[in-house]
Amino acid sequence: MDFEIIAVGTELLLGQIVNSNAQYISQKISELGGNLFYQTVVGDNPQRLKKALEIASARADIIITTGGLGPTGDDLTKETVAEFCGRKCVPDEESWQRILDRLEGQGLPVPENNRKQAEMPEGCIILPNANGTAPGAVIEEGEKTYIILPGPPSEMAPMFREQVYPYLEKRSDCVIYSKTLRVFGIGESAAEEKLRFLMETQTNPTLAPYAKLGEVTLRLTAKAKEREEAEKMLEPLEKQVRDILGDVVYAEGEENSLQQTLVKLLLEKGKKIAAAESCTGGMLAELITSVPGASGCLDCSMVTYSNEQKQKLLGVSAETLEKYGAVSEQTALEMSKGIRERSGADIGIGITGVAGPGGGTEEKPVGLVYVGICTEQIHRAFRYRFIGSRNAVRTRTCMNAMDLARRSLLDILPEG
Amino acid sequence: MDFEIIAVGTELLLGQIVNSNAQYISQKISELGGNLFYQTVVGDNPQRLKKALEIASARADIIITTGGLGPTGDDLTKETVAEFCGRKCVPDEESWQRILDRLEGQGLPVPENNRKQAEMPEGCIILPNANGTAPGAVIEEGEKTYIILPGPPSEMAPMFREQVYPYLEKRSDCVIYSKTLRVFGIGESAAEEKLRFLMETQTNPTLAPYAKLGEVTLRLTAKAKEREEAEKMLEPLEKQVRDILGDVVYAEGEENSLQQTLVKLLLEKGKKIAAAESCTGGMLAELITSVPGASGCLDCSMVTYSNEQKQKLLGVSAETLEKYGAVSEQTALEMSKGIRERSGADIGIGITGVAGPGGGTEEKPVGLVYVGICTEQIHRAFRYRFIGSRNAVRTRTCMNAMDLARRSLLDILPEG
Repeated sequence: MDFEIIAVGTELLLGQIVNSNAQYISQKISELGGNLFYQTVVGDNPQRLKKALEIASARADIIITTGGLGPTGDDLTKETVAEFCGRKCVPDEESWQRILDRLEGQGLPVPENNRKQAEMPEGCIILPNANGTAPGAVIEEGEKTYIILPGPPSEMAPMFREQVYPYLEKRSDCVIYSKTLRVFGIGESAAEEKLRFLMETQTNPTLAPYAKLGEVTLRLTAKAKEREEAEKMLEPLEKQVRDILGDVVYAEGEENSLQQTLVKLLLEKGKKIAAAESCTGGMLAELITSVPGASGCLDCSMVTYSNEQKQKLLGVSAETLEKYGAVSEQTALEMSKGIRERSGADIGIGITGVAGPGGGTEEKPVGLVYVGICTEQIHRAFRYRFIGSRNAVRTRTCMNAMDLARRSLLDILPEG
Repeated sequence: MDFEIIAVGTELLLGQIVNSNAQYISQKISELGGNLFYQTVVGDNPQRLKKALEIASARADIIITTGGLGPTGDDLTKETVAEFCGRKCVPDEESWQRILDRLEGQGLPVPENNRKQAEMPEGCIILPNANGTAPGAVIEEGEKTYIILPGPPSEMAPMFREQVYPYLEKRSDCVIYSKTLRVFGIGESAAEEKLRFLMETQTNPTLAPYAKLGEVTLRLTAKAKEREEAEKMLEPLEKQVRDILGDVVYAEGEENSLQQTLVKLLLEKGKKIAAAESCTGGMLAELITSVPGASGCLDCSMVTYSNEQKQKLLGVSAETLEKYGAVSEQTALEMSKGIRERSGADIGIGITGVAGPGGGTEEKPVGLVYVGICTEQIHRAFRYRFIGSRNAVRTRTCMNAMDLARRSLLDILPEG
């Protein structure tokens, strides 16, 4: 199936927002094994949208629009696509009731112009919107299909995931089954190097890596007639990948970040963590507590930027700071021990480094970071040398610290 | 001038990256007063790129491509555009020398396939790349202009800013001058409401709001024959905006976030800040320390999630926690006082609230947050009721806390 995405919105053409909807839908089309040759962006302008629809209809089977379903007079995507298909928009009682329920449930007034959102193209499949007032629609018109989706990503993505994806899966003559493996602790290119022969030789199932800051996500995908068959097909590939990569595979699934994995593991094992952060300035605590339920595994955490506070709050010795400096293995060790004792947590993390852009010296350059970890069994420090912006150095530091904590809980810390 | 952007890259069609280049260029075109009616994305495929060029050339005067300038055989944008214009690519000695200097300067080998990057369309204007090996190019072909830019945003954006923007400005018969005002502390729609008459009645200068999470950016833009004239034209508009909005205008300029403004102000006044964070879990400290040089105004900060640690680390009284609960004005007040005393900072911030998604009750729902602030002169707490995800609640809380700190330094806190 050949797809085309048309994002409608003057705010995209003015550069006020980035077209994240196109990225999301493109990923899903790729997962479904569909072909996407073009994405188009057009303003809230019926004439130009109509031209874009003409061009897209000449080169794709399934045209997906996003945006332009709001209640105002500018929002004309649904009306334009319907007209393009020679259909009228007619009031849909059920959609109107859902809008009423939604707005009244929030104690909001129901403006009359919301009525327009409940007028749907004749004969379309209506896609109810669980997160907003504008329903989506699927119009099957001859050999072409038009899928009309709302613009806000928080409405579009769930609608796509829950309604459009299953619809497209059903239309496809095969089932696509994907599984995601999350990888941390191996360089991005190193992971690709190790897996290249699997990526290049296989056509079904396939293996595709997606690099993010400091981590790699692997998507394993199989096509088959039945879901069960596709799942079966993935098993040997997954085993191969896991055998090759080993314990750098830390989780499965799109949603399982390093922080979610760590919090889950801490809660499962009934352990608590606390951090003493210098160069990361609270980022590690922020990442851990971004996971709902983190209060079960973190009672407190500290940011100790100045030497004085490292001594006062954590008990780092003046001698250590004097002799080795604040950015040193010894300070990281004492910070991790200090925070563990003072917080009563099972795992203490101490972070000290040079995040940049200033503050680097020849001996201690920007990007040099030590992470100490202290538990009942171990007391070690790890040295890193990161490259990149202040934000990149801080983020990579926190990811490595979380991975060390994860490894300490699983007793798979690298040899010293 | 009518523009069109064609982003070239299979990774965009696979959803591996978001089209941030299109957003950047769109913003700049809007600043220049140009018209942009379409953005297109196409893969690294010469046939399909050629079709996209045909369509774009029929509806725009200036076509800007991004991507596809790498050294590999897949990268064919420059060659395809040149062919489309009936031109050959010929070796350019200067460009080749720059590539050599760059790679050898980094101690890297110079692969033979980099030579391709120094072959430029005949008769083009060459745009040297200060941040990568691929030069860009401008081809003026009859009434149409083709501007070819590299794909990595870190190469594209500086090239656009430093070379393409001045080129376009020169081609334009006028000068565009823009100024950005940053606004916090007034609802997004309220700001638009207050300024609507200015937005709607003016054509030159113009006023355009850009909403981000919790804050509004206002762009004031004037067109004139000379820069000086444009600057002059903005003055009365800026005065009007500032008169209407008052002290919610916290900074000027694209780069001045609330955290940068606060850190700058703290450093100027020689004051220090420390936070005791519960529901934000370190996010406030993280934001403040994301600004280079923050070590001059933050010695330490604490995350106190549990009641026990609120007592132990901050001296919040057991009675307060018992009687009013952890999420209360009283606790926020005691947290701000406790962290101020223990850190020795001039400003103590205490944050307690329900970030969600769980943990809300009828009395203390998700989104209820108290921020306490304690200085030599004041000791007050502010109550908020935010709507949105855990991340939105936490982010808005931190932004409000930073604004309170800013206001306390300027002695413009709202009346109690």
